[in-house]
Amino acid sequence: MKTAFIGLGVMGYPMAGYLSKAGHDVTVYNRTSSKSEQWCKEYDGASAPTPAEAAAGADIVFTCVGNDDDVREVILGEQGAIRGMAAGVILVDHTTASAKLARELETALAEKSVGFLDAPLSGGQAGAENGQLTIMAGGKEETFERAQPVMDCYAKAITLIGPAGHGQMAKMVNQVCIAGVVQGLAEALHFAKRAELDVPKVIEAISKGAAQSWQMENRWQTMSNDEFEFGFAVDWMRKDLAIALEEANQNGATLEMTALVDRFYAEVQELGGSRWDTSSLIARLESKP
Amino acid sequence: MKTAFIGLGVMGYPMAGYLSKAGHDVTVYNRTSSKSEQWCKEYDGASAPTPAEAAAGADIVFTCVGNDDDVREVILGEQGAIRGMAAGVILVDHTTASAKLARELETALAEKSVGFLDAPLSGGQAGAENGQLTIMAGGKEETFERAQPVMDCYAKAITLIGPAGHGQMAKMVNQVCIAGVVQGLAEALHFAKRAELDVPKVIEAISKGAAQSWQMENRWQTMSNDEFEFGFAVDWMRKDLAIALEEANQNGATLEMTALVDRFYAEVQELGGSRWDTSSLIARLESKP
Repeated sequence: MKTAFIGLGVMGYPMAGYLSKAGHDVTVYNRTSSKSEQWCKEYDGASAPTPAEAAAGADIVFTCVGNDDDVREVILGEQGAIRGMAAGVILVDHTTASAKLARELETALAEKSVGFLDAPLSGGQAGAENGQLTIMAGGKEETFERAQPVMDCYAKAITLIGPAGHGQMAKMVNQVCIAGVVQGLAEALHFAKRAELDVPKVIEAISKGAAQSWQMENRWQTMSNDEFEFGFAVDWMRKDLAIALEEANQNGATLEMTALVDRFYAEVQELGGSRWDTSSLIARLESKP
Repeated sequence: MKTAFIGLGVMGYPMAGYLSKAGHDVTVYNRTSSKSEQWCKEYDGASAPTPAEAAAGADIVFTCVGNDDDVREVILGEQGAIRGMAAGVILVDHTTASAKLARELETALAEKSVGFLDAPLSGGQAGAENGQLTIMAGGKEETFERAQPVMDCYAKAITLIGPAGHGQMAKMVNQVCIAGVVQGLAEALHFAKRAELDVPKVIEAISKGAAQSWQMENRWQTMSNDEFEFGFAVDWMRKDLAIALEEANQNGATLEMTALVDRFYAEVQELGGSRWDTSSLIARLESKP
């Protein structure tokens, strides 16, 4: 199938690679062109100087960029993908962005008979590199059914949650859960360290019961050792939490703990932790006298 | 082995039963005597009118009561177990209580050459009824080695964390983790419901990734359906969080989210939820207009 991939960040780069390895014809676009040159060399592929030119002639176009503004620019902008797309084509946005934007894009693209899915990812850089991402999609069922087999090459699970925007909302549910789990774990480990407990023994004792979590299993050791130079960056987590808090506000939902943890992440940024992993909430506690 | 079990609540009642079924000679004591009568009938056992008399002649004495004051009363009180215990006997306290009390008891019992373990439980009522509890112990290694084979009949995992009090501290670590996980999950599900998402599909999509937790797997459905008449009561959770906050204060640890969640539980109590399961934090959010 003829595809275009717009945005070769830590997620998009390997994802576009999986499309190529699955036998699809891939044309890439990236704002910083050195990245697309590197990609073309690695995968013997093609690049285009604008999103519109990358999208021209594609059956399906993928975007995976930074935030709402970036998505708007690469899709609806002067040189946006929409200008290269024909009727019947599908656009899949893998960026974590607002549900409002997803609904706006579906409407704008429908005017050109282009199908749309908001399809944010979970699984992080490791998931993208191993082709084991989880995808939460929003959009029409017929669009989903056509796009799903193409996305299979980089995903272990792809779920259509509901109409446009619901993929993004599901991602917000995911991030709100993580905010609570990580802050709880951070306070618990901080408590254990200040009390001079044998942390590995404590984790051994509690890790099979009601306190168990993916974060406990995968992060207790790095958190105990103050290792944060990896994983999902605090800057990105704050972007996601800002979207969650804004959507909650519009739907009349109350997210007090989420708002508190977002402020804690702001303090981690002040400590110099903008690029640290989400688990660095404990660094803020440990920094206190 | 000759044992005594003091406190036949929802945890102690089946635990004493497992001791009896394992072939131990068990004498029980319970403040409300109808419970001990019922237990004696069910297990063809013996009861005593005071903790001291229950403990007389026992090789190992177990206590599982309400709070610090209750523990002090049944062990050190006028008719407390200590008055019936000979040198070389072991006392295991399964109550979730303060670490300070654990250290105090170890000292008091050592004067009579009685060994002590603080050994709080996790696994809840179901774990007690199935003999699948998790036990976090604090105390001397020789005491632990003698008590462990006896506790095996009602536990799936028994860990010696460190010296007296460290079993209680490990339990606090467990409860702080749970506070964060449950509040995060409550906000996430509340957000999903207010946004009218397909909650089962969202959970299906996110339950294998970085947001995964025991609480998500075991509580998302009851939380979504506002079912709280089961499990670990809010009153008990608040007792445990109060201990955690007090111990944190003494050790110079900062537990802001835990303190916030404790206040949220106070609001659940005001809604009439004192006996509701810990997962009822969502009821408070759903009660908002």
